[in-house]
Amino acid sequence: MTRWPLPPPMAEALEQARLAADLGEVPVGAVVVRDGAIIGRGHNRTRIDADPSAHAEVVALRAAAQALGNERLTGCEMFVTLEPCAMCAGAIAHARIARLVYGASDPKGGAVEQGARVFDHPQCLHRPEVVAGLGAAQASELLRGFFEARR
Amino acid sequence: MTRWPLPPPMAEALEQARLAADLGEVPVGAVVVRDGAIIGRGHNRTRIDADPSAHAEVVALRAAAQALGNERLTGCEMFVTLEPCAMCAGAIAHARIARLVYGASDPKGGAVEQGARVFDHPQCLHRPEVVAGLGAAQASELLRGFFEARR
Repeated sequence: MTRWPLPPPMAEALEQARLAADLGEVPVGAVVVRDGAIIGRGHNRTRIDADPSAHAEVVALRAAAQALGNERLTGCEMFVTLEPCAMCAGAIAHARIARLVYGASDPKGGAVEQGARVFDHPQCLHRPEVVAGLGAAQASELLRGFFEARR
Repeated sequence: MTRWPLPPPMAEALEQARLAADLGEVPVGAVVVRDGAIIGRGHNRTRIDADPSAHAEVVALRAAAQALGNERLTGCEMFVTLEPCAMCAGAIAHARIARLVYGASDPKGGAVEQGARVFDHPQCLHRPEVVAGLGAAQASELLRGFFEARR
Protein backbone atom coordinates (compact mmCIF):
# COMPACT_ATOMS: atom_id res chain seq x y z
CA MET A 1 0.00 0.00 0.00
CA THR A 2 1.21 3.51 -0.70
CA ARG A 3 -0.09 6.29 1.50
CA TRP A 4 -0.46 9.68 -0.09
CA PRO A 5 2.25 11.82 1.49
CA LEU A 6 1.38 14.82 3.63
CA PRO A 7 2.37 18.24 2.27
CA PRO A 8 5.75 19.19 3.77
CA PRO A 9 4.34 22.01 5.95
CA MET A 10 1.96 19.63 7.74
CA ALA A 11 4.74 17.06 8.09
CA GLU A 12 6.83 19.79 9.75
CA ALA A 13 3.91 20.80 12.01
CA LEU A 14 3.67 17.16 13.14
CA GLU A 15 7.43 17.14 13.77
CA GLN A 16 6.98 20.23 15.92
CA ALA A 17 4.24 18.40 17.84
CA ARG A 18 6.66 15.53 18.49
CA LEU A 19 9.23 18.00 19.83
CA ALA A 20 6.58 19.30 22.24
CA ALA A 21 5.85 15.79 23.51
CA ASP A 22 9.57 15.21 24.09
CA LEU A 23 9.52 18.28 26.36
CA GLY A 24 6.44 17.12 28.25
CA GLU A 25 4.22 19.69 26.54
CA VAL A 26 0.90 18.85 24.88
CA PRO A 27 1.91 17.73 21.37
CA VAL A 28 0.56 20.37 19.02
CA GLY A 29 2.73 21.93 16.32
CA ALA A 30 2.29 24.72 13.79
CA VAL A 31 4.10 26.41 10.93
CA VAL A 32 3.54 29.59 8.90
CA VAL A 33 4.18 29.39 5.17
CA ARG A 34 4.80 32.22 2.74
CA ASP A 35 5.30 31.61 -0.97
CA GLY A 36 5.87 27.92 -0.25
CA ALA A 37 8.58 28.48 2.37
CA ILE A 38 8.23 28.01 6.14
CA ILE A 39 8.90 31.37 7.82
CA GLY A 40 7.82 30.48 11.37
CA ARG A 41 7.34 27.32 13.37
CA GLY A 42 6.32 26.52 16.93
CA HIS A 43 4.97 24.00 19.37
CA ASN A 44 3.21 24.23 22.69
CA ARG A 45 5.58 25.54 25.34
CA THR A 46 3.28 26.99 27.97
CA ARG A 47 4.98 25.17 30.83
CA ILE A 48 8.62 25.56 29.90
CA ASP A 49 8.09 29.24 29.11
CA ALA A 50 5.58 29.91 31.95
CA ASP A 51 3.46 31.66 29.32
CA PRO A 52 -0.28 30.93 29.06
CA SER A 53 -0.27 32.30 25.50
CA ALA A 54 2.48 29.99 24.22
CA HIS A 55 0.36 27.63 22.15
CA ALA A 56 1.91 26.30 18.95
CA GLU A 57 0.00 28.72 16.74
CA VAL A 58 0.91 31.84 18.72
CA VAL A 59 4.57 30.80 18.89
CA ALA A 60 4.64 30.23 15.11
CA LEU A 61 2.80 33.49 14.36
CA ARG A 62 5.23 35.46 16.53
CA ALA A 63 8.21 33.86 14.86
CA ALA A 64 6.85 34.59 11.38
CA ALA A 65 5.95 38.18 12.27
CA GLN A 66 9.45 38.69 13.66
CA ALA A 67 10.92 37.24 10.45
CA LEU A 68 8.91 39.67 8.32
CA GLY A 69 9.15 42.59 10.74
CA ASN A 70 5.40 43.01 10.45
CA GLU A 71 2.51 42.08 12.75
CA ARG A 72 0.45 41.23 9.65
CA LEU A 73 1.12 38.02 7.77
CA THR A 74 -1.01 38.87 4.78
CA GLY A 75 -1.05 36.13 2.16
CA CYS A 76 0.54 33.55 4.49
CA GLU A 77 -0.84 30.12 5.37
CA MET A 78 -0.83 28.37 8.73
CA PHE A 79 -0.61 24.59 9.10
CA VAL A 80 -1.41 23.32 12.60
CA THR A 81 -1.98 19.79 13.85
CA LEU A 82 -5.08 20.56 15.96
CA GLU A 83 -8.14 22.77 15.58
CA PRO A 84 -7.23 26.15 17.12
CA CYS A 85 -8.74 27.30 20.42
CA ALA A 86 -10.36 30.74 20.78
CA MET A 87 -7.07 32.41 21.68
CA CYS A 88 -5.27 31.00 18.67
CA ALA A 89 -8.12 31.54 16.23
CA GLY A 90 -8.21 35.16 17.35
CA ALA A 91 -4.46 35.51 16.88
CA ILE A 92 -4.73 33.96 13.39
CA ALA A 93 -7.37 36.53 12.49
CA HIS A 94 -5.30 39.43 13.88
CA ALA A 95 -2.32 38.22 11.83
CA ARG A 96 -4.45 38.21 8.64
CA ILE A 97 -3.52 34.61 7.81
CA ALA A 98 -5.02 33.89 4.38
CA ARG A 99 -5.49 30.13 4.78
CA LEU A 100 -5.68 27.93 7.86
CA VAL A 101 -5.08 24.20 7.41
CA TYR A 102 -5.52 22.07 10.51
CA GLY A 103 -5.40 18.38 11.31
CA ALA A 104 -7.57 16.95 14.07
CA SER A 105 -10.80 18.54 15.23
CA ASP A 106 -10.91 19.36 18.95
CA PRO A 107 -14.32 18.85 20.53
CA LYS A 108 -12.90 19.75 23.96
CA GLY A 109 -11.18 23.03 23.20
CA GLY A 110 -11.70 23.93 19.54
CA ALA A 111 -13.14 27.28 18.53
CA VAL A 112 -13.29 27.09 14.72
CA GLU A 113 -15.90 24.46 13.84
CA GLN A 114 -17.41 24.33 17.33
CA GLY A 115 -17.61 26.26 20.57
CA ALA A 116 -16.90 29.98 20.09
CA ARG A 117 -16.62 29.59 16.28
CA VAL A 118 -14.39 32.65 16.34
CA PHE A 119 -14.34 33.28 12.57
CA ASP A 120 -18.13 33.20 12.26
CA HIS A 121 -18.98 36.50 13.93
CA PRO A 122 -18.97 40.05 12.55
CA GLN A 123 -16.59 40.97 15.41
CA CYS A 124 -13.92 38.83 13.71
CA LEU A 125 -12.20 41.34 11.45
CA HIS A 126 -10.56 38.79 9.15
CA ARG A 127 -11.67 35.28 8.26
CA PRO A 128 -9.13 32.91 6.69
CA GLU A 129 -10.07 30.18 4.28
CA VAL A 130 -10.25 27.05 6.45
CA VAL A 131 -9.31 23.47 5.51
CA ALA A 132 -9.70 20.75 8.15
CA GLY A 133 -8.60 17.13 8.45
CA LEU A 134 -5.16 17.13 6.81
CA GLY A 135 -2.93 14.87 8.91
CA ALA A 136 -5.76 14.37 11.40
CA ALA A 137 -4.95 10.71 12.09
CA GLN A 138 -1.30 11.39 12.89
CA ALA A 139 -2.14 14.44 15.00
CA SER A 140 -4.74 12.54 17.02
CA GLU A 141 -2.41 9.59 17.54
CA LEU A 142 0.26 11.88 18.97
CA LEU A 143 -2.22 13.43 21.41
CA ARG A 144 -3.70 10.07 22.41
CA GLY A 145 -0.28 8.58 23.08
CA PHE A 146 0.75 11.62 25.12
CA PHE A 147 -2.28 11.62 27.39
CA GLU A 148 -2.34 7.83 27.79
CA ALA A 149 1.27 7.87 28.96
CA ARG A 150 0.38 10.45 31.64
CA ARG A 151 -2.53 8.56 33.15
CA MET B 1 -18.58 67.78 42.44
CA THR B 2 -16.60 64.84 43.66
CA ARG B 3 -16.21 61.88 41.34
CA TRP B 4 -15.89 58.48 42.96
CA PRO B 5 -12.28 57.47 42.35
CA LEU B 6 -11.41 54.47 40.23
CA PRO B 7 -9.76 51.55 41.99
CA PRO B 8 -5.98 51.90 41.58
CA PRO B 9 -5.64 48.86 39.24
CA MET B 10 -8.07 50.37 36.70
CA ALA B 11 -6.34 53.76 37.04
CA GLU B 12 -3.07 51.99 36.20
CA ALA B 13 -4.66 50.16 33.26
CA LEU B 14 -5.80 53.55 31.92
CA GLU B 15 -2.28 54.90 32.41
CA GLN B 16 -0.99 51.94 30.38
CA ALA B 17 -3.51 52.82 27.66
CA ARG B 18 -2.14 56.38 27.59
CA LEU B 19 1.39 55.01 27.18
CA ALA B 20 0.17 53.00 24.17
CA ALA B 21 -1.31 56.11 22.57
CA ASP B 22 1.98 57.97 23.07
CA LEU B 23 3.64 55.19 21.05
CA GLY B 24 1.04 55.33 18.27
CA GLU B 25 -0.55 52.05 19.41
CA VAL B 26 -4.29 51.62 19.98
CA PRO B 27 -4.79 52.84 23.57
CA VAL B 28 -5.78 49.77 25.57
CA GLY B 29 -4.10 48.91 28.85
CA ALA B 30 -4.27 46.02 31.30
CA VAL B 31 -2.90 44.90 34.64
CA VAL B 32 -2.90 41.62 36.57
CA VAL B 33 -3.47 41.84 40.32
CA ARG B 34 -2.66 39.27 42.97
CA ASP B 35 -3.50 39.82 46.63
CA GLY B 36 -4.03 43.50 45.92
CA ALA B 37 -0.66 44.06 44.22
CA ILE B 38 -0.04 44.58 40.50
CA ILE B 39 2.19 41.74 39.25
CA GLY B 40 1.94 42.38 35.51
CA ARG B 41 1.02 45.29 33.28
CA GLY B 42 0.85 45.87 29.56
CA HIS B 43 -0.49 47.90 26.70
CA ASN B 44 -1.02 47.26 23.04
CA ARG B 45 2.33 46.97 21.26
CA THR B 46 1.52 44.95 18.15
CA ARG B 47 3.26 47.41 15.82
CA ILE B 48 6.37 48.24 17.78
CA ASP B 49 6.92 44.56 18.57
CA ALA B 50 5.74 43.22 15.17
CA ASP B 51 3.69 40.73 17.19
CA PRO B 52 0.03 40.11 16.30
CA SER B 53 -0.53 38.65 19.77
CA ALA B 54 0.76 41.69 21.67
CA HIS B 55 -2.55 43.07 22.90
CA ALA B 56 -2.55 44.69 26.33
CA GLU B 57 -4.08 41.64 28.02
CA VAL B 58 -1.62 39.13 26.56
CA VAL B 59 1.34 41.37 27.41
CA ALA B 60 0.11 41.73 31.00
CA LEU B 61 -0.63 37.99 31.35
CA ARG B 62 2.83 37.10 30.07
CA ALA B 63 4.49 39.54 32.46
CA ALA B 64 2.50 38.19 35.43
CA ALA B 65 3.19 34.56 34.50
CA GLN B 66 6.90 35.37 34.22
CA ALA B 67 6.79 37.05 37.63
CA LEU B 68 5.19 33.98 39.22
CA GLY B 69 7.11 31.43 37.12
CA ASN B 70 3.82 29.75 36.35
CA GLU B 71 1.59 29.75 33.27
CA ARG B 72 -1.44 29.69 35.58
CA LEU B 73 -2.48 32.83 37.40
CA THR B 74 -4.97 31.13 39.68
CA GLY B 75 -6.70 33.57 42.02
CA CYS B 76 -5.50 36.64 40.13
CA GLU B 77 -7.64 39.45 38.71
CA MET B 78 -7.26 41.27 35.41
CA PHE B 79 -8.26 44.90 34.93
CA VAL B 80 -8.39 46.00 31.29
CA THR B 81 -9.74 49.19 29.74
CA LEU B 82 -11.63 47.51 26.86
CA GLU B 83 -13.73 44.36 26.45
CA PRO B 84 -11.31 41.59 25.42
CA CYS B 85 -11.29 40.17 21.89
CA ALA B 86 -11.46 36.41 21.27
CA MET B 87 -7.68 36.00 21.44
CA CYS B 88 -7.43 37.80 24.76
CA ALA B 89 -10.52 36.18 26.30
CA GLY B 90 -9.02 32.81 25.39
CA ALA B 91 -5.69 33.75 26.95
CA ILE B 92 -7.47 34.93 30.12
CA ALA B 93 -9.22 31.56 30.36
CA HIS B 94 -5.96 29.63 29.78
CA ALA B 95 -4.31 31.68 32.54
CA ARG B 96 -7.15 30.79 34.95
CA ILE B 97 -7.79 34.44 35.84
CA ALA B 98 -10.38 34.43 38.65
CA ARG B 99 -11.97 37.81 37.93
CA LEU B 100 -11.99 39.96 34.81
CA VAL B 101 -12.87 43.64 35.21
CA TYR B 102 -13.10 45.64 32.02
CA GLY B 103 -14.00 49.20 31.07
CA ALA B 104 -15.64 49.94 27.74
CA SER B 105 -17.64 47.39 25.78
CA ASP B 106 -16.37 46.80 22.24
CA PRO B 107 -19.16 46.17 19.72
CA LYS B 108 -16.58 46.00 16.89
CA GLY B 109 -14.14 43.46 18.28
CA GLY B 110 -15.35 42.27 21.69
CA ALA B 111 -15.79 38.57 22.43
CA VAL B 112 -17.09 38.52 25.99
CA GLU B 113 -20.58 40.03 25.94
CA GLN B 114 -20.95 39.81 22.16
CA GLY B 115 -19.52 38.09 19.11
CA ALA B 116 -17.76 34.84 19.97
CA ARG B 117 -18.75 35.08 23.68
CA VAL B 118 -15.69 33.00 24.43
CA PHE B 119 -16.53 32.23 28.07
CA ASP B 120 -20.03 30.98 27.26
CA HIS B 121 -19.18 27.66 25.58
CA PRO B 122 -18.35 24.28 27.10
CA GLN B 123 -15.07 24.39 25.11
CA CYS B 124 -13.93 27.21 27.39
CA LEU B 125 -12.20 25.33 30.19
CA HIS B 126 -12.28 28.19 32.72
CA ARG B 127 -14.72 31.03 33.09
CA PRO B 128 -13.71 34.04 35.18
CA GLU B 129 -16.19 36.17 37.08
CA VAL B 130 -16.79 39.15 34.78
CA VAL B 131 -17.45 42.78 35.77
CA ALA B 132 -17.97 45.33 32.99
CA GLY B 133 -18.14 49.12 32.83
CA LEU B 134 -15.54 50.22 35.39
CA GLY B 135 -13.72 53.22 33.92
CA ALA B 136 -15.69 52.85 30.69
CA ALA B 137 -16.03 56.60 30.08
CA GLN B 138 -12.29 57.25 30.40
CA ALA B 139 -11.39 54.20 28.31
CA SER B 140 -13.78 55.20 25.51
CA GLU B 141 -12.57 58.80 25.55
CA LEU B 142 -8.97 57.64 25.06
CA LEU B 143 -9.94 55.46 22.10
CA ARG B 144 -12.12 58.15 20.54
CA GLY B 145 -9.37 60.75 20.82
CA PHE B 146 -6.82 58.37 19.32
CA PHE B 147 -8.88 57.45 16.28
CA GLU B 148 -10.09 61.00 15.69
CA ALA B 149 -6.53 62.27 15.61
CA ARG B 150 -5.68 59.68 12.92
CA ARG B 151 -8.46 60.51 10.54
